[in-house]
Amino acid sequence: MNYQEILEDIHQEILHRLPAGKVATYIPQLASISPQKFGMAVQTVDGELFHVGDALENFSIQSISKVYTLALGFTFEGDKIWSRVGLEPSGSTFNSLVQLEYEQGIPRNPFINAGALVVSDILVSHLKEPQVSFLEYVRQRANNASIHDDPQVARSERQAGFRNAAMANFLKSFSNLTNEVEEVLEFYCFHCSLSMSCVDLAKGFLFFANKGHCPWTNQKVLTPSQTKRVNALMLTCGTYDAAGDFAFNVGLPGKSGVGGGIVGVIPNRLTVAVWSPGLNEKGNSAAGQYALELFTTKTGVSIF
Amino acid sequence: MNYQEILEDIHQEILHRLPAGKVATYIPQLASISPQKFGMAVQTVDGELFHVGDALENFSIQSISKVYTLALGFTFEGDKIWSRVGLEPSGSTFNSLVQLEYEQGIPRNPFINAGALVVSDILVSHLKEPQVSFLEYVRQRANNASIHDDPQVARSERQAGFRNAAMANFLKSFSNLTNEVEEVLEFYCFHCSLSMSCVDLAKGFLFFANKGHCPWTNQKVLTPSQTKRVNALMLTCGTYDAAGDFAFNVGLPGKSGVGGGIVGVIPNRLTVAVWSPGLNEKGNSAAGQYALELFTTKTGVSIF
Amino acid sequence: MNYQEILEDIHQEILHRLPAGKVATYIPQLASISPQKFGMAVQTVDGELFHVGDALENFSIQSISKVYTLALGFTFEGDKIWSRVGLEPSGSTFNSLVQLEYEQGIPRNPFINAGALVVSDILVSHLKEPQVSFLEYVRQRANNASIHDDPQVARSERQAGFRNAAMANFLKSFSNLTNEVEEVLEFYCFHCSLSMSCVDLAKGFLFFANKGHCPWTNQKVLTPSQTKRVNALMLTCGTYDAAGDFAFNVGLPGKSGVGGGIVGVIPNRLTVAVWSPGLNEKGNSAAGQYALELFTTKTGVSIF
Amino acid sequence: MNYQEILEDIHQEILHRLPAGKVATYIPQLASISPQKFGMAVQTVDGELFHVGDALENFSIQSISKVYTLALGFTFEGDKIWSRVGLEPSGSTFNSLVQLEYEQGIPRNPFINAGALVVSDILVSHLKEPQVSFLEYVRQRANNASIHDDPQVARSERQAGFRNAAMANFLKSFSNLTNEVEEVLEFYCFHCSLSMSCVDLAKGFLFFANKGHCPWTNQKVLTPSQTKRVNALMLTCGTYDAAGDFAFNVGLPGKSGVGGGIVGVIPNRLTVAVWSPGLNEKGNSAAGQYALELFTTKTGVSIF
Repeated sequence: MNYQEILEDIHQEILHRLPAGKVATYIPQLASISPQKFGMAVQTVDGELFHVGDALENFSIQSISKVYTLALGFTFEGDKIWSRVGLEPSGSTFNSLVQLEYEQGIPRNPFINAGALVVSDILVSHLKEPQVSFLEYVRQRANNASIHDDPQVARSERQAGFRNAAMANFLKSFSNLTNEVEEVLEFYCFHCSLSMSCVDLAKGFLFFANKGHCPWTNQKVLTPSQTKRVNALMLTCGTYDAAGDFAFNVGLPGKSGVGGGIVGVIPNRLTVAVWSPGLNEKGNSAAGQYALELFTTKTGVSIF
Repeated sequence: MNYQEILEDIHQEILHRLPAGKVATYIPQLASISPQKFGMAVQTVDGELFHVGDALENFSIQSISKVYTLALGFTFEGDKIWSRVGLEPSGSTFNSLVQLEYEQGIPRNPFINAGALVVSDILVSHLKEPQVSFLEYVRQRANNASIHDDPQVARSERQAGFRNAAMANFLKSFSNLTNEVEEVLEFYCFHCSLSMSCVDLAKGFLFFANKGHCPWTNQKVLTPSQTKRVNALMLTCGTYDAAGDFAFNVGLPGKSGVGGGIVGVIPNRLTVAVWSPGLNEKGNSAAGQYALELFTTKTGVSIF
Repeated sequence: MNYQEILEDIHQEILHRLPAGKVATYIPQLASISPQKFGMAVQTVDGELFHVGDALENFSIQSISKVYTLALGFTFEGDKIWSRVGLEPSGSTFNSLVQLEYEQGIPRNPFINAGALVVSDILVSHLKEPQVSFLEYVRQRANNASIHDDPQVARSERQAGFRNAAMANFLKSFSNLTNEVEEVLEFYCFHCSLSMSCVDLAKGFLFFANKGHCPWTNQKVLTPSQTKRVNALMLTCGTYDAAGDFAFNVGLPGKSGVGGGIVGVIPNRLTVAVWSPGLNEKGNSAAGQYALELFTTKTGVSIF
Repeated sequence: MNYQEILEDIHQEILHRLPAGKVATYIPQLASISPQKFGMAVQTVDGELFHVGDALENFSIQSISKVYTLALGFTFEGDKIWSRVGLEPSGSTFNSLVQLEYEQGIPRNPFINAGALVVSDILVSHLKEPQVSFLEYVRQRANNASIHDDPQVARSERQAGFRNAAMANFLKSFSNLTNEVEEVLEFYCFHCSLSMSCVDLAKGFLFFANKGHCPWTNQKVLTPSQTKRVNALMLTCGTYDAAGDFAFNVGLPGKSGVGGGIVGVIPNRLTVAVWSPGLNEKGNSAAGQYALELFTTKTGVSIF
């Protein structure tokens, strides 16, 4: 299949639709990004890389980082992790406290904010220098030693993040945080602040399409069984309360972030990363989701 | 792959685990089924059929029928259907009225009871003789003209079904039922009362694995795009509030019923149907779900 | 105190504010009432009666009837009644099913619709001819043998009442209705359809201000202790999710109906009934509630 | 009426029922109090004081302080205060976040924790030295210059109070806190930590029974209208989700605290304070509530 040509077709179709959706405005660093940006990259398990548009430009990966924290936490804890966080779709918005109260402090899944805070807590417990170690983990997965966090984004996030602070304290009240609330929030804001490009993400998610094997370091990062399970979670929970819509229209395991990035995984074949900062009403990149729909239609690939 | 051998291995492993779970007791016709029953069948898109155990014995398909009603309703209404029923996982039990109230009478998806009642209402509006036409539709899909409903099951269901009656009246109060409450409930109880075997279901779901094409009648029952979408819905919503668990552990689009049946779909390859009446705490067949886990492990097939 | 003068002052003040609020429109019999109507009556425990405006005109008492059904059910069951219905304010709208689901079919209090349906069920169980006996009970309380139901209102109510039907079926699914759903709904719609005037209601509630003693029949209808308790319930639950607002602004035990009536009780002194069909956003008579605020301000009476 | 004799009768009846309920254990300072403690005091508007048992012993007033913060906040803001906090019973537990989320950060009433945090925020904004000024206010109301806070209780409360911290951050996320989260929490824990006796509380609440006039300082602390309204709020919301039960069984405006204190108000007559640390399942003093039931039965006083 001529992926480069397909990406270019999509690029053309998307361009005259931009700007689409609304850029996130709750922190200045996101609010200032041009809604005209669009990039897309494909990395195949056979080692080929394709990209168009702004695919080499860094953006704030935000919640996409939660797939990495889950993968790392899963490595440390194995299936014990599921005693502290569920694996069911939440049916509510990503930052709801309602369900957490009814379910006694066990977040529905590791991708809603509450669940990601629990996973952050697990990493803080396991890692001596959580920020250093986590950054190194991501760099290795993406084969790019220059990936870095954005301290200004983390700081803004922490200052605006009263709802996350509410959630962390709420989790603590249910004894589902073992470290200090502040420490967990700080690490959470750190991992959400990572700056990466579409190419970084396509490369950096390849091990999810490759039975857990990371080709760049030649490491078995996850077992094939764990890999399948993380992919299943991305499908059922990766795009918050739009997971059904995403499965219905795109048909791939995927994870989105409020910075406008989305990464999709086609097991045993490829990863596809897209970026466009304007968000639809569900908080997913508007142009990005449409580009992925076009991609699955044009290539005929889908898991369904 | 030697599917017959795999099925026989699974059968051996399951046998010494039976009985597992608890048989549904809310109507006498379900309560009286032996929890020792176990059957399993595989139908490939290449035309091969394999089966073990009680795979030829009829059982009450219950909610599995909701995939058929959706497919038929989807044919009639196209994407207009999504204005009356959502496509997101519910995050609640299958018969909850809470979400319906908060979301003003639009059920989360077509597989929870409220959603299935709306789909029933759509079929009652479109079909002159809903019961006759629907039965004929199912018979054609499964290539078995002797498939029939069980009027005693339907009657028991209707008598015990105060919660469904509550839901139908609630939907009507939101103007999301167009026909009479009684008429919709009667058709709903009818389609849930169909009696089929694992072999019937494996054959009868084949068009979902075959891009919408039904080989027995050589009809294009759904478009490839619609087929993908129904499969996506089965994955995200097919096993109620255990959809995440099912995706995580089985990794296939599937639909379960309270009679102990589960059907799974591997797009472009095969369907697999299993039956064992004992249910786990989530209301899915305990031995059935375990058999499907074994099946995906032993065959290595999974969509993830 | 010169109650007649006070009522006339209030009447003057209210007149130039009419019409206020919106008349209920869900059934034609309510929708057609003029929003200009206003009547008010005071009955003291010393036997004096005062009234102004349309205080002799009949209107649909609707939910005000629920105080009578409770009083009668309380007589039959004593404190056993509280095992089937609670006595706490609901914090939600009068016809919500959410709380009923979370609390397993035990309605919060006897004045929300679900609670009143349970009380209706109790009366249907205790009374041979529920409608005849209940009507006789109300006539005796108000000392007016010509009080009657309005069959057209009852019929309209039953036809429009999908939400009540949902609730009754829901209660039945939790085994908190012992009679047939239809029978309970019919009696419920009957008692809500009673036609009474402000004078009827002021006289008919007098026993609540008189330690349970009905002067017209010289009967001890309730014990002093039961009377206090029904008054307490009217204060905490009598105006649905506006009970706090009503206690705050009016400061009396009271019960409102969607027909625009409100009755207030000042223990050991008097009852006051008001009617004006325009409702505020909480479903209580707009002019009626304001008239009661004026009444407690001008007379200085309040329980607080 | 011979109040002293009535109190002594009640004391005798209570003594052989102790210990009753369970002492609060979430902070060590409460957990260590003997469940045998029982004290009761009555202060009439005519200036008479009666007391029995441990009525002169100090205990932690906890949530009873919220009536003082409300009274002071009401003085500062007048009816503007109701734009930031509601006046309806909550129908949920005192520390629920669910309702707060559905109602967009406006707490149901000033006595649930979320509402009291908003009132604390208001006081922090109005008072230069909030702790000093508030303590002085309470001392004046109770005519006792030796009343003091308990810094160890406040500290324990703050350390254990993750749920309150969650709530404060949640309120901040809805812009319903204007000061720093930490500052508000500190003041909140301070006012809950006040140590007072039954006699202090009976005297200190007298202005609520006295149309807002404080006899000890001869000050009009609240207007008669404001006083009625605070009393109404105590009745509908003063004992959390047991307000209906308290109104039903005791029949007085009242406010309870987790330290085992309860104060009741009979407008224009008296106040009655009781203390016994063992709590019933709703979090109100078990022996205390029973003593108040006996008091209203024996004296025949009740507002209903």
